[in-house]
Amino acid sequence: MIVDCAIYEEGVRRDGKVELAHAYHDRHEPGTFVWIGLYEATAEEFDSLKREFELHPLAVEDAIHAHQRPKLEVYGDMVFLVLKTARYVDPTEVIQLGEVLVFIGADYVITVRHGEASSLGPVREALDADPGRLRHGPGAVLHAILDLIVDDYQPAIEGLEKDIEEVEEELFSGERTNPAERIYRLQREVLSFRKATAPLVDPIERLARGHYELIHPEIRDYFRDVNDHLIRARDQLDAMRDLLSGSLQANLAQVGVRQNEDMRRISAWVAIIAVPTAIAGIYGMNFKHMPELRWELGYPGAVLAMLLICALLYRYFKKVGWL
Amino acid sequence: MIVDCAIYEEGVRRDGKVELAHAYHDRHEPGTFVWIGLYEATAEEFDSLKREFELHPLAVEDAIHAHQRPKLEVYGDMVFLVLKTARYVDPTEVIQLGEVLVFIGADYVITVRHGEASSLGPVREALDADPGRLRHGPGAVLHAILDLIVDDYQPAIEGLEKDIEEVEEELFSGERTNPAERIYRLQREVLSFRKATAPLVDPIERLARGHYELIHPEIRDYFRDVNDHLIRARDQLDAMRDLLSGSLQANLAQVGVRQNEDMRRISAWVAIIAVPTAIAGIYGMNFKHMPELRWELGYPGAVLAMLLICALLYRYFKKVGWL
Amino acid sequence: MIVDCAIYEEGVRRDGKVELAHAYHDRHEPGTFVWIGLYEATAEEFDSLKREFELHPLAVEDAIHAHQRPKLEVYGDMVFLVLKTARYVDPTEVIQLGEVLVFIGADYVITVRHGEASSLGPVREALDADPGRLRHGPGAVLHAILDLIVDDYQPAIEGLEKDIEEVEEELFSGERTNPAERIYRLQREVLSFRKATAPLVDPIERLARGHYELIHPEIRDYFRDVNDHLIRARDQLDAMRDLLSGSLQANLAQVGVRQNEDMRRISAWVAIIAVPTAIAGIYGMNFKHMPELRWELGYPGAVLAMLLICALLYRYFKKVGWL
Amino acid sequence: MIVDCAIYEEGVRRDGKVELAHAYHDRHEPGTFVWIGLYEATAEEFDSLKREFELHPLAVEDAIHAHQRPKLEVYGDMVFLVLKTARYVDPTEVIQLGEVLVFIGADYVITVRHGEASSLGPVREALDADPGRLRHGPGAVLHAILDLIVDDYQPAIEGLEKDIEEVEEELFSGERTNPAERIYRLQREVLSFRKATAPLVDPIERLARGHYELIHPEIRDYFRDVNDHLIRARDQLDAMRDLLSGSLQANLAQVGVRQNEDMRRISAWVAIIAVPTAIAGIYGMNFKHMPELRWELGYPGAVLAMLLICALLYRYFKKVGWL
Amino acid sequence: MIVDCAIYEEGVRRDGKVELAHAYHDRHEPGTFVWIGLYEATAEEFDSLKREFELHPLAVEDAIHAHQRPKLEVYGDMVFLVLKTARYVDPTEVIQLGEVLVFIGADYVITVRHGEASSLGPVREALDADPGRLRHGPGAVLHAILDLIVDDYQPAIEGLEKDIEEVEEELFSGERTNPAERIYRLQREVLSFRKATAPLVDPIERLARGHYELIHPEIRDYFRDVNDHLIRARDQLDAMRDLLSGSLQANLAQVGVRQNEDMRRISAWVAIIAVPTAIAGIYGMNFKHMPELRWELGYPGAVLAMLLICALLYRYFKKVGWL
Repeated sequence: MIVDCAIYEEGVRRDGKVELAHAYHDRHEPGTFVWIGLYEATAEEFDSLKREFELHPLAVEDAIHAHQRPKLEVYGDMVFLVLKTARYVDPTEVIQLGEVLVFIGADYVITVRHGEASSLGPVREALDADPGRLRHGPGAVLHAILDLIVDDYQPAIEGLEKDIEEVEEELFSGERTNPAERIYRLQREVLSFRKATAPLVDPIERLARGHYELIHPEIRDYFRDVNDHLIRARDQLDAMRDLLSGSLQANLAQVGVRQNEDMRRISAWVAIIAVPTAIAGIYGMNFKHMPELRWELGYPGAVLAMLLICALLYRYFKKVGWL
Repeated sequence: MIVDCAIYEEGVRRDGKVELAHAYHDRHEPGTFVWIGLYEATAEEFDSLKREFELHPLAVEDAIHAHQRPKLEVYGDMVFLVLKTARYVDPTEVIQLGEVLVFIGADYVITVRHGEASSLGPVREALDADPGRLRHGPGAVLHAILDLIVDDYQPAIEGLEKDIEEVEEELFSGERTNPAERIYRLQREVLSFRKATAPLVDPIERLARGHYELIHPEIRDYFRDVNDHLIRARDQLDAMRDLLSGSLQANLAQVGVRQNEDMRRISAWVAIIAVPTAIAGIYGMNFKHMPELRWELGYPGAVLAMLLICALLYRYFKKVGWL
Repeated sequence: MIVDCAIYEEGVRRDGKVELAHAYHDRHEPGTFVWIGLYEATAEEFDSLKREFELHPLAVEDAIHAHQRPKLEVYGDMVFLVLKTARYVDPTEVIQLGEVLVFIGADYVITVRHGEASSLGPVREALDADPGRLRHGPGAVLHAILDLIVDDYQPAIEGLEKDIEEVEEELFSGERTNPAERIYRLQREVLSFRKATAPLVDPIERLARGHYELIHPEIRDYFRDVNDHLIRARDQLDAMRDLLSGSLQANLAQVGVRQNEDMRRISAWVAIIAVPTAIAGIYGMNFKHMPELRWELGYPGAVLAMLLICALLYRYFKKVGWL
Repeated sequence: MIVDCAIYEEGVRRDGKVELAHAYHDRHEPGTFVWIGLYEATAEEFDSLKREFELHPLAVEDAIHAHQRPKLEVYGDMVFLVLKTARYVDPTEVIQLGEVLVFIGADYVITVRHGEASSLGPVREALDADPGRLRHGPGAVLHAILDLIVDDYQPAIEGLEKDIEEVEEELFSGERTNPAERIYRLQREVLSFRKATAPLVDPIERLARGHYELIHPEIRDYFRDVNDHLIRARDQLDAMRDLLSGSLQANLAQVGVRQNEDMRRISAWVAIIAVPTAIAGIYGMNFKHMPELRWELGYPGAVLAMLLICALLYRYFKKVGWL
Repeated sequence: MIVDCAIYEEGVRRDGKVELAHAYHDRHEPGTFVWIGLYEATAEEFDSLKREFELHPLAVEDAIHAHQRPKLEVYGDMVFLVLKTARYVDPTEVIQLGEVLVFIGADYVITVRHGEASSLGPVREALDADPGRLRHGPGAVLHAILDLIVDDYQPAIEGLEKDIEEVEEELFSGERTNPAERIYRLQREVLSFRKATAPLVDPIERLARGHYELIHPEIRDYFRDVNDHLIRARDQLDAMRDLLSGSLQANLAQVGVRQNEDMRRISAWVAIIAVPTAIAGIYGMNFKHMPELRWELGYPGAVLAMLLICALLYRYFKKVGWL
């Protein structure tokens, strides 16, 4: 589905709706480029684009099927990028990954969104308001898209960080919860998030270093800035992985310690009940000559002794922390 | 065993059965190459090929004995590849690895399959239908084989992923299963699968970068595409390894937690039975002066009291979650 | 907030308060440079600096928002550094990280402090007293700042090391503490501290190797010296991480061993109380012909036997270390 | 001890016993080289060799004392290799490492064996039968030695692999064994075996790449082939290390699960014996008015009830898998 | 404190005590160099050396304060090395690290020892006896020092290895020890020892490769030899780290298994005492009609039955290995 089609002349967007045919034609004029946006496009929808822009069939295939790893490929004069968008979904504590694929040439940008990928609307609006930057051509659009996507990683990472803090609190709260599953699932999210970000660091580095002519020298620093944020995200995810792996281990200790506490508590109660049982057993013996048995106060005395011993044991176990 | 022998002229397969002798002779004509397919060939069967194509004895030895690690070797003008095929076998949850060895020269391709290696039939058929690609010579055949083999990794990986999901479910289901063995065996499969794929990444990178003249420049991008899928497979296997190692740890916590639950449940029952035993002990004492013993309702009262206490304890333990 | 503004002429600071406007003007004279210090400056406060020194907008943005990873960026003739300061806060055992950002050009140094960053006052004073060094220009100031910040890592690391020693003592003290939480939190601090230091090693290496003309050859060795301390800090943090991970594992063993000890102690007491109960049960049997029951000394004898057995068991369990 | 001394002329071994003095003299003739074999030679035995071949004193010292790590050193025109041989010793499940040291020059090969190093006899015999290869000079001898040693790694690795399989079977057999010690000892063997093989990969790579003139270009491919086997061995050992570390973890889970099973079984028996005890306690109470006590069938009824309850509990525990 | 001051002329040490002033003067003669040895020198003691040899202030500062990481620095024509000495101290099982700092120039060597650093006396004596080597100048001295220090690593490593073997024996001895603390402390020593050795590998490699003119080409091989021993030490320490980490894990299994054994033993005794208690309870019931109670042999029969059952249970538990 073609979502948008725009012509930029000297950095300014031409007003009104633009037909694809016009875009194809006018892009060849100097200082002009087109930006065509698609959403989960089919092979048929791609057909005319493929012919007009001479897109490489492998890149087109990737753009249609998605589920690629993040990457940057160069096909002749065209650069093709696969980007992953990330969104934190709270109740289920998962990172929802989407995909944005970008074809970029001397006078065109084609973007294809897949799945839950964040809309690129804000990018267009921000760019439309800044013709100075757009004058640097399609590279400026690429930067704006990368910037949006990488900036969107931060709230997702913060969502995970908050989860990890909750898990830590749960872990050491003294309550009898077992956050093993939650830790494991967070680990899983962190791993898949990392796989979606880390492979981009090298390609963006190359963009920033000026390996590709498509990127105007004036905006290379901006790609370095994006990469900085990307590296920060990757490092945060790495640290999370280490933390979560440490918390799985700490959880084992907590489970062990709690079992120990339970065992002591149980044992204390067993002791409290065993003593009167033993005393009762003694006075249940059938010896002929047991003077206590004849005492008027024998029975209440025995019961009192039992209660007293129970109370003393209770206090003792309280004191040593077993109860 | 020689399975197939074909001559390709300008990308088109010559009709009818082709004798080896013709293949040897005609391959020298311009725009022509032969593809000879073998299955678990013996040294004798290789003899004539070895002489005709001047195959290096070390490569031939590898091709006969198989059980090599994946690799790409260059012997003079000839390139020799060892590839591993993978197939997921469901009931036993194992990855069955086969081996395909490819000799490739300016005007010939020799393929040798070993073990459960996927048949290369589909490759032939797909290629026969696409003479345009075959015009690029033996390199196109190599690409098609690599493409098939690497694409076949994906269902095998998905099989393992499904197993891992099942293990996760089992792990956190609350049921008293111990998936340690299953996790361990999956880890083993993941490790051996990874060993079969990862060493190929560098060689294919070199194929894509144009290090070898055998690969026509027009199809280099296709090798990059194959490598992309291979890297994706490798990364998935790496992530699985991390996940499985995390799940072994989570399993330890689950085992500990379950033991704790059992201990509490057992202790609760011990308490429920210990109290009436203690009471019975008390009324079993032989004191002369125990007024309750003479009461008409002493006995039913005592039993009632026992039942009541048991019921109260039961309710209490239910409430605190020990039962 | 502009905290300080100074003009250095041939390494000597000009007396009295200096207006920004003078600084802007006089810095162009040979042998002269200015040092402007800011604290959590806003975009407005930066405005005039940005225009005068032609600071790159991305660097300015970083300087205003802070929360960057440590890095060194080159924008044209200007070098921009992000540094992390570290301070150990004892009662809570955390490492408080601050941020110092440095813009450095041929004739100016601009420093921006954020958060709990250590004041740069001592740097100024030390430098003012050493005009010889300041004659080497802004690079000397950069070195002095780096030196102060990296030297301040050492007490923070020592704080953590003392904590780790305490944890070790606790771990193996035989007392029934569970330092899992403390170990985990220390691990967290070590990880975040490491993230604040390690990424600087490469950039400072480049400073020391003379990649940047801003750094006078005479003071390059000093940067190497700073890097040496930085690498030492990083290695110490790495070793701590390994130690803490080992201590989490040792803690598991300690927890297990303590549980075992508890179980034995409990079991010993159960045995001590079970034996008299069994004896009492035997003499509570209602057989007609039990000669002991008629003996005058039957009862005291039985009680004595019980006490004796208890005492013997107690001594035995003491001897084998269960009590 | 000098074990063998041979002169090869145009690849053919000269018949009869050869004196050292002749060997020294004749080696200078074109197409001729000598191979001198020693076993745990002393400094005295080395003396004449050292003078004749101008062996570097450091290499000689290494050859006498052995216990080196595997390495390749170049001293002027001479190449010196330290190789480790490995043999699996079954009853004790250890890898016995020996050492072979090789000095190689333009017209000589000196081999020194230490410890349990496999005899080089088979190498000599194989070479003597293949003059074509020996025509390539001492490099061919080096290849043959390397080939033998590296090929001998495979049975040793298979021995370890069989042990690991046995450990796995033991681990998951349901029997109550604790293979922790065996796993640990295997880990130890794998680690020391790996240390004996991995450092050779880079030097042999350099031999294969033609860094040394001593190696005739025609036989470089053969070194690549050896390296391939070496890398395979190293990768297998790496995989074993991962597997053993995983099996230590799985063993922890097994130990925990078995403890749980024991606890349940024990608890079930406690329950089965506790119920009749409680019933007996009740009928042991001394209430005046307990009608059951007077029933003719009271006693057998009570005993029957006890047995019945025990049987029911037994069946129940069987069903839920606690017994 | 200046410990020694010697002048070497053509490799021969000048007899008698040498004054610093003479040393300063005579070192400029061809074929002559001085070696000055210090022990924990203060800044004042260094003053004259610093002026005479134009030592870089940063190196001097390092030499006075020590506690550096091992490193090699080049300051103009002077090379500065920080070396760590290691000594195994048995009763406490710690590695005592000392420090030796070496300044080396065209005609001087200055050595500074700190802490428990092994005396350099043996180096001097060995060198004095070998003028041939000393003719290669200060580099020969450096090699002799390095050689002594690195050779001294071996007994320290063997000390640790013996400890590890003891720990292994303890671990799997079946005795009820918990070597967790000892393992942890050994891990700590291994880590700090490794930090003291590994960073030297690269600098010595550079010395061996001839990066520094100070090292005479004839003795470069000797540095390679030293590095070989250093790498061996580092690899041994790495293997130890892996082994100790594996033994911590194995210890967890041992702790778990022992707990299990205890639990079974305890449970067996509980069973042995529970059965007579239950029987006694049964014959303690007050049923009117219990024929056994009237039998003459009832009581001894019951007691005998109890003993018999206990004996049978004991034998059974012995047989199944619970006792």
